[in-house]
Amino acid sequence: MFSNVTRVEVQFGDCDPAGIVYYPNYFRFFDNATAALLSKAFQMHKRLWIEKHGILGIPMVDTGAQFFKPSRFGDEIEICSEIVELGRTSFGVRHTVFNGGEKAIEAHEKRVWVGRDPEVEGAIKPLPMPDDVRSVLGA
Amino acid sequence: MFSNVTRVEVQFGDCDPAGIVYYPNYFRFFDNATAALLSKAFQMHKRLWIEKHGILGIPMVDTGAQFFKPSRFGDEIEICSEIVELGRTSFGVRHTVFNGGEKAIEAHEKRVWVGRDPEVEGAIKPLPMPDDVRSVLGA
Amino acid sequence: MFSNVTRVEVQFGDCDPAGIVYYPNYFRFFDNATAALLSKAFQMHKRLWIEKHGILGIPMVDTGAQFFKPSRFGDEIEICSEIVELGRTSFGVRHTVFNGGEKAIEAHEKRVWVGRDPEVEGAIKPLPMPDDVRSVLGA
Amino acid sequence: MFSNVTRVEVQFGDCDPAGIVYYPNYFRFFDNATAALLSKAFQMHKRLWIEKHGILGIPMVDTGAQFFKPSRFGDEIEICSEIVELGRTSFGVRHTVFNGGEKAIEAHEKRVWVGRDPEVEGAIKPLPMPDDVRSVLGA
Repeated sequence: MFSNVTRVEVQFGDCDPAGIVYYPNYFRFFDNATAALLSKAFQMHKRLWIEKHGILGIPMVDTGAQFFKPSRFGDEIEICSEIVELGRTSFGVRHTVFNGGEKAIEAHEKRVWVGRDPEVEGAIKPLPMPDDVRSVLGA
Repeated sequence: MFSNVTRVEVQFGDCDPAGIVYYPNYFRFFDNATAALLSKAFQMHKRLWIEKHGILGIPMVDTGAQFFKPSRFGDEIEICSEIVELGRTSFGVRHTVFNGGEKAIEAHEKRVWVGRDPEVEGAIKPLPMPDDVRSVLGA
Repeated sequence: MFSNVTRVEVQFGDCDPAGIVYYPNYFRFFDNATAALLSKAFQMHKRLWIEKHGILGIPMVDTGAQFFKPSRFGDEIEICSEIVELGRTSFGVRHTVFNGGEKAIEAHEKRVWVGRDPEVEGAIKPLPMPDDVRSVLGA
Repeated sequence: MFSNVTRVEVQFGDCDPAGIVYYPNYFRFFDNATAALLSKAFQMHKRLWIEKHGILGIPMVDTGAQFFKPSRFGDEIEICSEIVELGRTSFGVRHTVFNGGEKAIEAHEKRVWVGRDPEVEGAIKPLPMPDDVRSVLGA
């Protein structure tokens, strides 16, 4: 299905006293990678496709990661992101991180296409993903 | 003027590969300390006094810090926060950080009391601080 | 097995433009919660038990979380952390987050007890967890 | 004196519930910008010039920023960084942030060139900056 590659140069402040990337920061990288994946699919910035589709966002409902190899300040890591599941109101993404050609992390996430719930003030609800969204993500 | 003391236990992830607190994190601590200072002054949570006064927030317009002594994972630092300036639409705060009884950082900030600008869609504007706010912060 | 409860007051800066906790920050909370869990088990600060056992740390090898309910600025969340798996060189932790009495997140992690690899300069290797460590974590 | 321009695309997670960049994150951007400035000056990555000069780093001793205009998710900001002061053991940097052609922030910082103090176990001390470092930064 649809995929994209992003590159992140690991910064000093991304790392912890062990000298390796502090793992919560990878989830920040993955959130950016998913935004980039969908922005490439929709050929517009996330700020615009959020608005175009009248949704509130794509909140995370399930995520996980396996860490095989640490990364360090100055490493340039490659994040290969791919749609791996396409539901009616949700989709799955797999991020595979490479560092120096070796697989460093494998992560997955499930996100929901949500909008305002017209029946409950302040509440959100999953919305069906439009056909054009499904077809571009599934391509 | 009004003052408050907060304590922060330095966490592993607050520190960088040099083993000391990554300095941008101190500004996060100071932002929390200012929220705590005003919440103590107003005797309610920031979420409530923002709402009560009908403001959008207290954005930072000027801040600075001098670093005298690094702090490390496991250190408990003490942040003494005090109102040091009280303008019509803005106020100044000084944060003094102590670590093990020694002064570690001295920081200052200037924040503005802002609300929606009724004349420009989406814009904000400084609002005069109400008398009761000024008197409690100035006490 | 061994368990501990920590409380986190959600700060303004922990939240994103959707007004809810930016999910990578939960992993920061969980890292702190695991440090607190082991520090309670060993009755000393992580800085000390790392040193006492001559290890380099307890790096994450696998983690995941399911998000049921968002949390917002000012919410006080409760993180119940429990050892759920005890291997020879690794252990598993489950974190259950409650917000206002409702389950908000369920997360798990697997960490390895690592030290320096004496045979490869700069490398680390999993070490068997000492019996006293295993017995206190398994209690 | 020596200068460099870096660009940062503001990410969703850099922003707070007010929808603007959470100001502590700017200091993270500035730390990266200073690393990039010196890496460009020395024509090698920070990891390498730290090692080449046998120093421990360039810790921050004084920083400050004035904020004129907020930035939002999706904005691409430009950080113009310039050496503005060159002492014997320290140097000053000014960062000017532009967003959409307008000045958004002006920040300054003072950093010290430090190494291990051979006389006190675990301590650091300011070291004189080598002539070639001074001449490239001052150019």
